[in-house]
Amino acid sequence: MGRWQPDAQGRFVRAALELFAEHGFEATTVAEIAARAGLTERTFFRYYTDKREVLFDGQDMFADALVSGIREAPADAAPVDAVAAALVSVGELFPPERHAFARTRQRAIEANPALGERELGKLAASAAAMAQALRDRGVAEPTASLAAELGMVALRVAFARWTAGDGERTLTELMTEALAELRATAA
Amino acid sequence: MGRWQPDAQGRFVRAALELFAEHGFEATTVAEIAARAGLTERTFFRYYTDKREVLFDGQDMFADALVSGIREAPADAAPVDAVAAALVSVGELFPPERHAFARTRQRAIEANPALGERELGKLAASAAAMAQALRDRGVAEPTASLAAELGMVALRVAFARWTAGDGERTLTELMTEALAELRATAA
Repeated sequence: MGRWQPDAQGRFVRAALELFAEHGFEATTVAEIAARAGLTERTFFRYYTDKREVLFDGQDMFADALVSGIREAPADAAPVDAVAAALVSVGELFPPERHAFARTRQRAIEANPALGERELGKLAASAAAMAQALRDRGVAEPTASLAAELGMVALRVAFARWTAGDGERTLTELMTEALAELRATAA
Repeated sequence: MGRWQPDAQGRFVRAALELFAEHGFEATTVAEIAARAGLTERTFFRYYTDKREVLFDGQDMFADALVSGIREAPADAAPVDAVAAALVSVGELFPPERHAFARTRQRAIEANPALGERELGKLAASAAAMAQALRDRGVAEPTASLAAELGMVALRVAFARWTAGDGERTLTELMTEALAELRATAA
């Protein structure tokens, strides 16, 4: 087998999600993921340190989308409106054709506390990146961090709704709605 | 050595925090924690499944304080005001004499991503308990969950400020302030 495998990461991710859905996260081994993907364990460990990491691929792209959204918001946008722009920007990463995949991933995460903790850690890192992007626009603390936290709550709530449903409404719509609801609750 | 050890949990927690501060979390073993506490590894595993759990003792008391605060809030309190009462209630668990302990714990958690993830998971479970307590008061969704999430952001921010500082201001003051700032940011 050659060293380079076309779409190795995509194959590992799909194989892992199938196996997690069939047997649960705990019962699935890296050997099984590699076999299902038609690749070797050695190739697996070239991309990931453990089976948890397979589910957190694309994390950098996610944080980058949030940061770009804030950078590209109008200069006079209020902090929470810049955060709303960040959510729209991240929504573009999750078009309708990613709904089935996102739903399987969310179920694996909700079924396993260690995965849920990892997810929260990754989202907290994304919130920190948003806060930094707000400070780079001149937003002072504590407003920068708090606006980023509000955005992350809206994103989490919307993501849970999107993956619980059948995908009829877009993630972007649901995030915009969740942020408006959060602001109304805080008022 | 007898089976019962006075204040075994308190001794394990203090020993673990000392060792985490001295050598870091990763480099500290359960054997070392037990030795420092003057107890056996066997006794350690009677209380905890692993060394991470030592830092998350008292989690039930924490969630219970939040829930009681919501239950005891005036019947006509707005959801976010019931959450403010929950924060005051949890503040009573952290009097000034717990500041040094809380600071050491917070530093151990901030220095280790896996501990940070566990902390976020525990806080998410407490937010879910608050949301349930709000629903029990007749607060509808999504307001119940969103008000609980707002409270948890305020609690996290205030806890970071309390443990970063010298303890001059109380945790309760800092939580009340953080919730007010969050509401102003959302407005």
